[in-house]
Amino acid sequence: MRPSGRARDQLRPIVLETDVNKYAEGSCLAKFGDTHVLCTASLAESVPPWLRNSGRGWVTAEYGMLPRSTDSRMDREAARGKQSGRTQEIQRLIGRSLRAVTDLTGFGERQIKLDCDVIQADGGTRTASITGAYVALHLCFQHMQRFGAVKTIPLREPIAAISCGIVQGETVLDLDYAEDSNAQADANFVLTGSGGIVEVQATAEQEPFSRIQYDQLLALAEKGIAELVTQQQAAVGLGAA
Amino acid sequence: MRPSGRARDQLRPIVLETDVNKYAEGSCLAKFGDTHVLCTASLAESVPPWLRNSGRGWVTAEYGMLPRSTDSRMDREAARGKQSGRTQEIQRLIGRSLRAVTDLTGFGERQIKLDCDVIQADGGTRTASITGAYVALHLCFQHMQRFGAVKTIPLREPIAAISCGIVQGETVLDLDYAEDSNAQADANFVLTGSGGIVEVQATAEQEPFSRIQYDQLLALAEKGIAELVTQQQAAVGLGAA
Amino acid sequence: MRPSGRARDQLRPIVLETDVNKYAEGSCLAKFGDTHVLCTASLAESVPPWLRNSGRGWVTAEYGMLPRSTDSRMDREAARGKQSGRTQEIQRLIGRSLRAVTDLTGFGERQIKLDCDVIQADGGTRTASITGAYVALHLCFQHMQRFGAVKTIPLREPIAAISCGIVQGETVLDLDYAEDSNAQADANFVLTGSGGIVEVQATAEQEPFSRIQYDQLLALAEKGIAELVTQQQAAVGLGAA
Amino acid sequence: MRPSGRARDQLRPIVLETDVNKYAEGSCLAKFGDTHVLCTASLAESVPPWLRNSGRGWVTAEYGMLPRSTDSRMDREAARGKQSGRTQEIQRLIGRSLRAVTDLTGFGERQIKLDCDVIQADGGTRTASITGAYVALHLCFQHMQRFGAVKTIPLREPIAAISCGIVQGETVLDLDYAEDSNAQADANFVLTGSGGIVEVQATAEQEPFSRIQYDQLLALAEKGIAELVTQQQAAVGLGAA
Amino acid sequence: MRPSGRARDQLRPIVLETDVNKYAEGSCLAKFGDTHVLCTASLAESVPPWLRNSGRGWVTAEYGMLPRSTDSRMDREAARGKQSGRTQEIQRLIGRSLRAVTDLTGFGERQIKLDCDVIQADGGTRTASITGAYVALHLCFQHMQRFGAVKTIPLREPIAAISCGIVQGETVLDLDYAEDSNAQADANFVLTGSGGIVEVQATAEQEPFSRIQYDQLLALAEKGIAELVTQQQAAVGLGAA
Amino acid sequence: MRPSGRARDQLRPIVLETDVNKYAEGSCLAKFGDTHVLCTASLAESVPPWLRNSGRGWVTAEYGMLPRSTDSRMDREAARGKQSGRTQEIQRLIGRSLRAVTDLTGFGERQIKLDCDVIQADGGTRTASITGAYVALHLCFQHMQRFGAVKTIPLREPIAAISCGIVQGETVLDLDYAEDSNAQADANFVLTGSGGIVEVQATAEQEPFSRIQYDQLLALAEKGIAELVTQQQAAVGLGAA
Repeated sequence: MRPSGRARDQLRPIVLETDVNKYAEGSCLAKFGDTHVLCTASLAESVPPWLRNSGRGWVTAEYGMLPRSTDSRMDREAARGKQSGRTQEIQRLIGRSLRAVTDLTGFGERQIKLDCDVIQADGGTRTASITGAYVALHLCFQHMQRFGAVKTIPLREPIAAISCGIVQGETVLDLDYAEDSNAQADANFVLTGSGGIVEVQATAEQEPFSRIQYDQLLALAEKGIAELVTQQQAAVGLGAA
Repeated sequence: MRPSGRARDQLRPIVLETDVNKYAEGSCLAKFGDTHVLCTASLAESVPPWLRNSGRGWVTAEYGMLPRSTDSRMDREAARGKQSGRTQEIQRLIGRSLRAVTDLTGFGERQIKLDCDVIQADGGTRTASITGAYVALHLCFQHMQRFGAVKTIPLREPIAAISCGIVQGETVLDLDYAEDSNAQADANFVLTGSGGIVEVQATAEQEPFSRIQYDQLLALAEKGIAELVTQQQAAVGLGAA
Repeated sequence: MRPSGRARDQLRPIVLETDVNKYAEGSCLAKFGDTHVLCTASLAESVPPWLRNSGRGWVTAEYGMLPRSTDSRMDREAARGKQSGRTQEIQRLIGRSLRAVTDLTGFGERQIKLDCDVIQADGGTRTASITGAYVALHLCFQHMQRFGAVKTIPLREPIAAISCGIVQGETVLDLDYAEDSNAQADANFVLTGSGGIVEVQATAEQEPFSRIQYDQLLALAEKGIAELVTQQQAAVGLGAA
Repeated sequence: MRPSGRARDQLRPIVLETDVNKYAEGSCLAKFGDTHVLCTASLAESVPPWLRNSGRGWVTAEYGMLPRSTDSRMDREAARGKQSGRTQEIQRLIGRSLRAVTDLTGFGERQIKLDCDVIQADGGTRTASITGAYVALHLCFQHMQRFGAVKTIPLREPIAAISCGIVQGETVLDLDYAEDSNAQADANFVLTGSGGIVEVQATAEQEPFSRIQYDQLLALAEKGIAELVTQQQAAVGLGAA
Repeated sequence: MRPSGRARDQLRPIVLETDVNKYAEGSCLAKFGDTHVLCTASLAESVPPWLRNSGRGWVTAEYGMLPRSTDSRMDREAARGKQSGRTQEIQRLIGRSLRAVTDLTGFGERQIKLDCDVIQADGGTRTASITGAYVALHLCFQHMQRFGAVKTIPLREPIAAISCGIVQGETVLDLDYAEDSNAQADANFVLTGSGGIVEVQATAEQEPFSRIQYDQLLALAEKGIAELVTQQQAAVGLGAA
Repeated sequence: MRPSGRARDQLRPIVLETDVNKYAEGSCLAKFGDTHVLCTASLAESVPPWLRNSGRGWVTAEYGMLPRSTDSRMDREAARGKQSGRTQEIQRLIGRSLRAVTDLTGFGERQIKLDCDVIQADGGTRTASITGAYVALHLCFQHMQRFGAVKTIPLREPIAAISCGIVQGETVLDLDYAEDSNAQADANFVLTGSGGIVEVQATAEQEPFSRIQYDQLLALAEKGIAELVTQQQAAVGLGAA
């Protein structure tokens, strides 16, 4: 029995609320249960120096947590004067994941910055960030399409992410914090709508796990991500929720 | 005529939504029109070194803006590696203001950190922060009261803040960004429920203003703050909205 | 009775000593009693990037305290690796104040940096800085005038600053450190020669103060600043001391 | 045909040279072809504050690259004033991997720091670091055993790491830089001597890869790591090379 | 002929003005011509952690330049967020030099911080700093003696410093900036009152110099330092100026 | 008797191993006994901004120590976020020394960066760095000569460095750490092949030393550097070892 009463392969209630920010070209508040991440896509009409005159655009991401998004208040990174290794690791992951489905030659020499800010955290903030950032990015491209900056949306397919883990010997989908802090292993999967693997990060927290367990985790992720992609499509106006 | 169609002495629609965070001992989402600030109060069972064994507690504040809370995306302070002078100035102001109405001898050797994070900015973020932080702090003390940590709420009276300014020669209340960016003068007032002055910051942006204009600004602030205090009292359960 | 034996509305002995630095285009050692601030104006033949090709110049300020300018030695900010919030707040105030009386279109695309370094501190360092910086800036423009860089001095009128406060229930002018550290309220006023208000920063240190008290503080400031302006005019050669 | 002429499942020449540092309690120069990483284990008789009086020890890692370890000289991180996100990600991975096979209750309240410094880089520096760090850590525990600080070596089993990738459509083992910079996908596996999975980091650099490809990568890794473990055992004196 | 008209072995006018700071336990404004350095000695009743319970005291130094102490304004180190290599090199030199003549066992577990702040620079700021810091330190010990903290002054002998150099083929004493910026070689000597060598830093700026030239530089230094020591003794009240 | 059994004027075994790095244009592993410094020369086709269009090149140096190059592990400077004063002092010395024998007009607008990384330290790391950096720089120029970037090697003569000191009252050559940590005085000499003095840094660690002692130190340095230069010439292919 999971602390939340969910079945082994059951996601938390997922909400992808769009257009939550007055200014951003695309925005999405992604809720995976009590984990709430505000994702915005900001369009800039220039690229980093190393891409100038390449005809290509760029997509990058930043990640942050509000100090009291967690049970114990964390120090504010701006006050500490640097981003933690964990923060940098996560924002690199988000950017890499979204670039994997974006046609960087399809929107000119422009840069889109994806900001994923955790308003409240209950496990799985990086997977909610990727899932919500895809929606924000799609909405940003829709905005650009309306103004003629792109003809077609330069995204090859949807992309979403979910965590799985081994808790009390059992493989389970979409860990909340109560599970995550006691998991024997913890894996984050980033998959595309067609099931392609974009990123796997699996870590044995306590003792090594087996290949069989790993295969179970991947199967759970495939199920969960299919459900997330359906919701993403609805959120961007391409299907029914 | 103001861009928003408001009267000279009219506040924007004010919402003080409480208990918006699952973890914080007190929380309030303060909305002044399109300016939205998430205020949390976090209780810690220790004080800074210079207060140890003094029997006194401490209240301090931190302030931040999400990168896309503004029309043009701002750099993330955590990524830049330091807080701007403006950020530090504002968080010092918030802390000072709240301490002015708090009985620091009334809740033991504990520290309460007020985090004011701007989710969306449309002018007046520091005044919304102070107004919302008071509510979060009061709710935190109520929480402590329920658990017996304090007998009475150690707040002498309510405190709230509002901006006033001179726009196109006219003194007006509660500037939004469209007004703020064109104001000839800009003043932030922090007043108590009984009308005491706690802080005044008045700045001539373009040309000096006169004592008569200054007196008009203060009168507007007194009117606006009286309305804010009524809403605060309702939010903390001490009166009707 | 004030610790210094001064009357309620009496300034400390004021000295504005000019041309104290061999290299600076303008310089003034401003002494307000035992508070000594060395102010220099440094002219540069370029402006910040955001003003290029605007035809406008810029005036900015930096502030610092020598480590042993105070009774207890302070840490050196250069060694600590960052400027405190207080330092940044003060240098922003100095720059803003001086820009309020400067015609930024009147001296070409040039930048003048005002450095205010506190050699010895006894309260009121920010007001001595503003008062001395005006003199240094005026002398810098005189230097530019001699070399033909400007035809007329692009300063609309003098500007000076003074602190007032409520000490033992009494409103007093120009607080020294002994008074400042016990004041119930503390206010810094920046006024022009013609009495226009440029900046007000008033803070209740212990308990809120009333509008009547506030009006008394402003009246004291008006008296003190009139005296400071007379001395500034003498220092820049425009009147007798 | 691979640039190096190796078979698909062939490691580069591997050398694990021990006792290469006069001072360290354990040291190993790990060479994977032209990738050379100097790994040292440094014993300290204290633990981080959060482990005091826990009876447990700690193992942590730091990673660095000499500026000219790479084809184009990189900026020195000490001169830039911060470690890159990549550096932090790698040193977190090394520490986590080694802790996964260490009995942290088995060597008292002591800390062992593993420094992995890349002298020359030709792809796979993080996997060479983990593989060499295991040897350095084992030698450190042997040193402690000789002096009676531990009775038995508190390592449950060997651990090693290798990269695999998809290059020109083909899955290959142990990528050098020429392959790595053109890989379609890149995966780092950290496995134990008994085949347990400790960490998987797989990334599609260009386009998503399939589950079948993923399984091939893991099979390659299992083969390579078995060979590395044989060499580790020889290096620490527990078997023949 | 030197730019200043001085003879080869002639110092600039030297002034060692004492008690120039209201708060410091010892202070000296050292003027070597147009080079003016404000030196203060600050006494603290504690030592760095590594000296606790050793019965020994410590003397350390910090050095800084005001931004407009030089012909071209320099960036403020506090604003840049770090001290330059040059600054660190000089403050390490000052501390080391003063410790060389101080009996660190002679004033208890106390620390004296010497702050040397360059008000105006015209070459030789580090030598003026050492020379003035000795006076400030002596006055600090006199202060401690008056209050009974030490019985005798724990200084073994005076110490002073001077620069010499090779300018237009000629060896000269006490270079000003005009000479320093064109010198073929530049040497700083720190000698004691009895002629002992404490520190030599000699640098060929353009081409190597010979042993004979080096001996001439040392002879000049010996002459100059004898004169400085005489002035130091007068300044601390131990001889006539 | 010296701890190492060497005669007063005897160097440690010196090895200058060349071409130790696959990528660098020039490289040398300099071993002075157990002190091992890896020196690389990296060529870049551009100069710092202040040299653009000057027709001149630049040579600069950086220095670092691996954390466990020393008996007690040191903190990693990249992790601490800044280089120590000692590191900056040394890298400035290395750069200045090498520039003193380089014809900066002789290799176009190019920059050569010399990285000196201490792999293992046993005293004298800065002198081994300078000695090895000369070899790496010469090899870099040879590389440029082969590709036609320079016609002749733009080095006027060899340069090397050695430490001397006063240990137990005796002047000795090439101190190892056991001697260095107990020396009464410590001097580093940088001399050219023809005996010219480029840099002297002499420091009395405990008590001042005399001119006679200083002369002995310099004589020892001249002997040692002559031997080092012979080895350098062999290493760069200009004479027999």
